[in-house]
Amino acid sequence: MRVGVVGCGYWGSKHVRVLSSLPEVESVIVIDPDRSRRDAMTSRFANGDFPDLTSALSSVDAVVVAVPPKLHREVAAEAITAGKHVLVEKPLATSTSDARFLVEQAAHAGVVLMVGHTFEYSGAINELRTRIQLGDLGDVQYIDAAWLNLGLYQDDVNVLWDLAPHGISICNYLLGGQPARVGAWGSSHGNGGTREDVAMLQLQYDQPRVTAYIRVSWLDPAKVRRVTVVGTRRMAVFNDLAHAEPLRIYDRGIDTDNESDYSASTLTYRYGEIVSPYIAASEPLTLEVRHFLECIATGAAPRSHGENGVAVVAALEAADRAIATRSLVDVPGAISLLPAFNGNDATVQIPEEMVG
Amino acid sequence: MRVGVVGCGYWGSKHVRVLSSLPEVESVIVIDPDRSRRDAMTSRFANGDFPDLTSALSSVDAVVVAVPPKLHREVAAEAITAGKHVLVEKPLATSTSDARFLVEQAAHAGVVLMVGHTFEYSGAINELRTRIQLGDLGDVQYIDAAWLNLGLYQDDVNVLWDLAPHGISICNYLLGGQPARVGAWGSSHGNGGTREDVAMLQLQYDQPRVTAYIRVSWLDPAKVRRVTVVGTRRMAVFNDLAHAEPLRIYDRGIDTDNESDYSASTLTYRYGEIVSPYIAASEPLTLEVRHFLECIATGAAPRSHGENGVAVVAALEAADRAIATRSLVDVPGAISLLPAFNGNDATVQIPEEMVG
Amino acid sequence: MRVGVVGCGYWGSKHVRVLSSLPEVESVIVIDPDRSRRDAMTSRFANGDFPDLTSALSSVDAVVVAVPPKLHREVAAEAITAGKHVLVEKPLATSTSDARFLVEQAAHAGVVLMVGHTFEYSGAINELRTRIQLGDLGDVQYIDAAWLNLGLYQDDVNVLWDLAPHGISICNYLLGGQPARVGAWGSSHGNGGTREDVAMLQLQYDQPRVTAYIRVSWLDPAKVRRVTVVGTRRMAVFNDLAHAEPLRIYDRGIDTDNESDYSASTLTYRYGEIVSPYIAASEPLTLEVRHFLECIATGAAPRSHGENGVAVVAALEAADRAIATRSLVDVPGAISLLPAFNGNDATVQIPEEMVG
Amino acid sequence: MRVGVVGCGYWGSKHVRVLSSLPEVESVIVIDPDRSRRDAMTSRFANGDFPDLTSALSSVDAVVVAVPPKLHREVAAEAITAGKHVLVEKPLATSTSDARFLVEQAAHAGVVLMVGHTFEYSGAINELRTRIQLGDLGDVQYIDAAWLNLGLYQDDVNVLWDLAPHGISICNYLLGGQPARVGAWGSSHGNGGTREDVAMLQLQYDQPRVTAYIRVSWLDPAKVRRVTVVGTRRMAVFNDLAHAEPLRIYDRGIDTDNESDYSASTLTYRYGEIVSPYIAASEPLTLEVRHFLECIATGAAPRSHGENGVAVVAALEAADRAIATRSLVDVPGAISLLPAFNGNDATVQIPEEMVG
Repeated sequence: MRVGVVGCGYWGSKHVRVLSSLPEVESVIVIDPDRSRRDAMTSRFANGDFPDLTSALSSVDAVVVAVPPKLHREVAAEAITAGKHVLVEKPLATSTSDARFLVEQAAHAGVVLMVGHTFEYSGAINELRTRIQLGDLGDVQYIDAAWLNLGLYQDDVNVLWDLAPHGISICNYLLGGQPARVGAWGSSHGNGGTREDVAMLQLQYDQPRVTAYIRVSWLDPAKVRRVTVVGTRRMAVFNDLAHAEPLRIYDRGIDTDNESDYSASTLTYRYGEIVSPYIAASEPLTLEVRHFLECIATGAAPRSHGENGVAVVAALEAADRAIATRSLVDVPGAISLLPAFNGNDATVQIPEEMVG
Repeated sequence: MRVGVVGCGYWGSKHVRVLSSLPEVESVIVIDPDRSRRDAMTSRFANGDFPDLTSALSSVDAVVVAVPPKLHREVAAEAITAGKHVLVEKPLATSTSDARFLVEQAAHAGVVLMVGHTFEYSGAINELRTRIQLGDLGDVQYIDAAWLNLGLYQDDVNVLWDLAPHGISICNYLLGGQPARVGAWGSSHGNGGTREDVAMLQLQYDQPRVTAYIRVSWLDPAKVRRVTVVGTRRMAVFNDLAHAEPLRIYDRGIDTDNESDYSASTLTYRYGEIVSPYIAASEPLTLEVRHFLECIATGAAPRSHGENGVAVVAALEAADRAIATRSLVDVPGAISLLPAFNGNDATVQIPEEMVG
Repeated sequence: MRVGVVGCGYWGSKHVRVLSSLPEVESVIVIDPDRSRRDAMTSRFANGDFPDLTSALSSVDAVVVAVPPKLHREVAAEAITAGKHVLVEKPLATSTSDARFLVEQAAHAGVVLMVGHTFEYSGAINELRTRIQLGDLGDVQYIDAAWLNLGLYQDDVNVLWDLAPHGISICNYLLGGQPARVGAWGSSHGNGGTREDVAMLQLQYDQPRVTAYIRVSWLDPAKVRRVTVVGTRRMAVFNDLAHAEPLRIYDRGIDTDNESDYSASTLTYRYGEIVSPYIAASEPLTLEVRHFLECIATGAAPRSHGENGVAVVAALEAADRAIATRSLVDVPGAISLLPAFNGNDATVQIPEEMVG
Repeated sequence: MRVGVVGCGYWGSKHVRVLSSLPEVESVIVIDPDRSRRDAMTSRFANGDFPDLTSALSSVDAVVVAVPPKLHREVAAEAITAGKHVLVEKPLATSTSDARFLVEQAAHAGVVLMVGHTFEYSGAINELRTRIQLGDLGDVQYIDAAWLNLGLYQDDVNVLWDLAPHGISICNYLLGGQPARVGAWGSSHGNGGTREDVAMLQLQYDQPRVTAYIRVSWLDPAKVRRVTVVGTRRMAVFNDLAHAEPLRIYDRGIDTDNESDYSASTLTYRYGEIVSPYIAASEPLTLEVRHFLECIATGAAPRSHGENGVAVVAALEAADRAIATRSLVDVPGAISLLPAFNGNDATVQIPEEMVG
C-alpha cells in the first residue's frame, strides 16, 4: 500500500509519522506546495514528495487529506475520482452538501471514504461506549463536553468547525445517533472580532432523548478536553489529558422513592465508589490509520464512515445557522446511525442506502 | 444588636453559627415553624427562638431572611415595615418587581437592605477585582463561570435561580455593571422533567463589552465552583474549591503584529508565568455578616446593596424568559453600577436615585 | 458525664468544641492557667472553667489531657489518681517508662486510659484496615508515610514526637503489631539547629515482616498527610487531604512466572483499575471522643488503649536513640498487638496481661 | 559526525531517535547483539548496524554507551582507546575506580567523555539552578527528592543505581558540590529479596551545608519524579510529571524576630505568592545530545563531564556501603565541583587536575 498525505501541517505531519511506522505501508508520499515542509518530512519519514496531488496520483493507492477544511471537498474529490481510497481529516467538508457529495462520489467510485474522527478510536471512549451499551450507566440523560485551549486560531473556519467536531463525533458515537436540533452561541474576542473564538453548542437528540452541551474556545488559559456523561445509574468523565486515568466512572445518582413524585423533597442522592478502569495506552491516530488500511484490505465500511462525517458537518452547519439566527435549528435529514452492538466490537453496520 | 434569623435550613443555620461567634451581636434569635430545627440551634448557638417572624419582631433589631426564595418578598417586607434592617439571602426575590419593591420599601423605611451575595466578600474575588481595576488583566474580553454539583434540588425554583446568582453577582461585581442582554438554555433530567436542573447562561455586557457564559447544574458527578476571566493582557482563574490557591493569574495572551490584521497567521501566543497570589483565609460569610452590622452602625450603603440584588434578579428573570422564548432577551433598565474605585477599597458609591 | 479539658491550645480547643456538641456530655469544663484562653472557650462552648486541674477535680468525671507532651505524665497521673477516666493526646508521654507508668496506674485505679491516636478513628483508615485484613491487598510488603507542612514548630519536642505519632499509630493499627527495630535520621534547619525539624523513620516489623518508612517535616512548602501501602496483590494510598477521595486502591502489582526465579527478566507488571471506595464523611475526632465516652459507659478497653500509646512512645524513643547513635535500635519489649478480626469491627481484644 | 549507539534497549533506542533527527549527525549506527532490536531501529531511524562495537569502530566518530551499567567500563574503554568521543548513560560505571579509570583514559586519549545526567539539561532544573545561584531562594537548607514508580526492575543493579543517579546528579548540580557523607537504607520486597527495590538516601553536603534526602522505589503505585528545595527565603518544587508547570516557587518561610532565639514561640511563618515560571518545552535528551556534539566540535568540557559522573558513582558506592554497614559513610575524595556562575550560562570550569 502506497499512501499519500496531502498537507503537511499540524495533522498532516502526524499522519506521515504514523504511516511511516506501519509495516503494512510500503511508501509514504508527502504532497504540499511548500518545499521546506516536504523536506522536513522526507528527511525523516517519507519516501517521496510532490508539490500537488495531480502529479502524485500515479504514485499512491490511498490518500490522507489534511489540508485546510475549505479545500477538503476539492482535494478529496480529485482523489476519489482517480479511484483512490480517502481518509479526510475532520470536518469532512465545510457544508453538508459538499460532505454528501463526497459520500456519493466514493460510493460511485467504489472506494473507501473515511473521516478522521480520532476519538472514535480512543481506548477510553470505546470503553465508555461499551459500558453505555451494556447499560452500566443506565439511561444517558445528558452530556457535557469541553474543548478549550489558547489558540490555535484558524484562518478559514471559526472555533466551532475547528474544535467542535471532536465533541459532536464523540456524542454521536456514544449515543448511536445524531442530534435533531442544534442551538449555538458564539462570540469573538481575541482576533478583532473576525470569527467566533468562543462558542457553546446545545445538541438535542431524540433517540435516545439526550441533551448535550459542548463548549469550545481558542481563548482559555488552561487546556481542557473533557466529556461528562450523566446516566440514571452512573456518571462518567472522560478526560483526555489525564493520561493515567482518562476515564472515571462515578457510582452516583439521584433516586426517588416514588416514580411519580419528583419533588425535590423526595429525592435522595446516592454516592458510591469511583472507578478508573485500566485503559491500555495506545495512540488513537495509529488505530485510526490502521483501521483505514484494514477497511481498504477487507472492503468493510469504516467505523467513522462518510455518513458519520456528514452527520457532524450537518450539526456544524446547523450551529452556524443557529448563531446567525439566534434560534434553535432543525438538522435536516437526521437519521439514526445506531450501530449494531456486539460486545466489545464497535464495528458499525451501515444501512445499504447510506453507503451508496 | 439583636439579630433574628428566619429559616433554619442550610443557609440559615450557617448564619446562626456565624452570628453567635461575633462579639458585636448581643443575641441571636432563631425563627422557624419547625420546633426541632429551632431546638438544634438553641441548644448550641442561639439565645432565643420563635415560630414566626411576627411574634419575634419586638425581640430583634435586624433580620436575616433565609427562607425559600419564593417567600423572600413577604418575609423581608414584614421586617422592613417593622423598621428592621434586613439581610436577604440571594436571590433577593423571585421577580424584578418584587425585588424593586423591597428596595423602595427599605429606602422609605430608612433601614439597611442588603442581599447575601457571598462571593462579593471573598478574599480571592476581591483580589481579582482589584487586579482587573488596576488594569493587570488588560481589557476583560470574556468570562466563563461554572457552578456544578450533584443536588441539592430545590422545591420552589429551578437550577438557575438556585446556583446562577453566584456567577451573575460575581460578573456584575467584577465588571461594575449589569448585562444588557441575556440568552439561556435549560434542560431537565433528574427530576422527571419538572424543572430545569442543567442550564447555560449567556450574559452580554455593553459597558465594558464582555460576554460571560455561566453553566449551572444539579446533575454533575464533580463539584465545580469556578470563574475564568480572559483579558487582553492576562487571564485569571478563580476556583473556590482550591483552598490553597483559589486564584491563579496566567500571564498568557494573544498578540498581533498589526493592529488591523487579525488573520490567524499573524497571531502569536504569549506564554508567561502563572502566579497564585497569597489570599488570607477568611470566611466570606463572616465578612458579609460583619459588613451588614457595620452598615447598620454607620448608615453606609452595603456593597451588595438592594439594587445589586435587583440586577441579579433582572438577569435571572430575563434568563427564564430566554429559555421560554428561545431567544436573546433584553434586560430592562440595565444601568451602570460601576463602583468608584479607590485602591483596595471596594466600597460602592451608589447614585442618589438608586437608593431612594 | 462531666468532662474537663486540660490545655486550651490547638488540640484542646478542638476537644472542647466536639465535646460541647455531644448530647451525652452534661458539662464541659476548661482548665488552663491562661484566663483569656479559658474565656474564649466559655463564651461559646464550655460550661465552666478552672485555672488548674486540682481545683477542677471535683467538677469532672473524665479528663482530656491536651497540654504539651512533657506535661502529659504529671497531669494524667493526677487525674487517674483522683479516679478520673483519662483521654491523653498523642504521644501518651515523652518516655516509655512514663507511658507505662500511666498504663499501670490506670489499671490500678480501674479507670479508662485512652490515647488520642485520631487516625485509628478515621473512616478511610478503617476501610483500608478492613481490606488488608480481608486479604484484598495480599500480603503487605511495605508502607511509606509522610506528614509534612510548614510549621508548627513545637517548644518542647522535635518533629518526630510532634508528627510521627500519626504515622506510627497508623502502621501499628494496620499491621496489628509494633516494630521490632527502628532506624531514624534527623536534621535541623529552620530553627537555628536547636531541634530536628526534618526526620525520616524506618520501622522494621517482624510479624508480619514489613518495612515502613515515615517522613516528617516542619519545613515543607506543601502540606502532605499520606500513607502508601504496598501489598502483593494490590496497593493503596490514603491521602487525608483529598477530602473527596481519601482512599484509593490500585489493582497493580508484580507477578513472576516462576516462584523461585525473581530475576528482573521474569517479572511482569500488572495494571488494573483504580477504585476510590465511598467513605462517609465523619470527623475522626468526634468518633474518637464518642468511643472514649462509650468505653467509660461499658467498661470496654478502648481501641487506642494505653498499651497502644506505649507502643508508639517506644518507637519514638528508639528513633531518638537511633538518631543519636546513628544505628538501628531494637524496640524493647515489642509485643504483638494483633487485634482479633471479625468483619468490619475493629474492636481490639487485648491480652489480659497488657491491660494490667 | 557519525555516531554509534551501543545497546538498543529503553535508553539506547531513545538516543537513536534523537540522533536521527539532528541535521548535524551524518549517520546513526546501531550496535547490539540482538538482530531484531537492530532491525527495529534501522527500519525507521538508523543508517547502519553492527552486532558488536569492535566491528563498528571504523564506521563511527563518537559512541553512545547504553548497555547495562555493569558493562559501561568495558564498552566505554574500548571506544575511548579507539579514539572515539564517548557519551555514557548514567551511572558512568558501577564502581568509583572504574569511573575514575574512564576519566583518566579519556584525558589521555584526548576525547570527550560525557555522562548522561539528563536532568542537568532540563529547562526547569536550569531555571531552578539559576534562581538558587542568584540568591532568590536564600541559603539552601535542605532538599527532598523522590523517584518512584512500579518497575522496571533491573537485572544487574539495585534500585539505588537505577533511579538515584537522577536525584544525586540534580543535587550536585544545584549545589555545585558533592556530598561528604552518605547514609542509606534499603529493603527488598517485590523480587523475592534478591536486590533492594526500595531505598532512602541521606546526603550530607558540607559546602554549602545542606542535607538532601532521596527516596527511590520500584514498588509504588504512582509514578513520582520530584525535588523540593527549601531555602531560607523561598522554597521550590520541581515536578517532572507536571508538564505544564514543572517548577513552582513558593514565597514561604520561617522568620525569627531575634537571630539568637530560635525557640518555637518566636518563630513566625511567612506565606506569599506561588509562582510557576514559564519553562519552554524542550526535550532534555535532545539538548544533552546536542551539547555532546558541540563539545566534540569545540573541545569544551561538557557540563556533565566525567568527573561529575565519578561524583555520582562515589555517592552510590558509599550508599551501598552504608546499607551494608548500617552506618553513615564518608565519601572519599569529595571535592568541590562548584561551577563558575555567570548569569544563565551553566558551563562548568573544571580545575586542570580533575580532567587529567
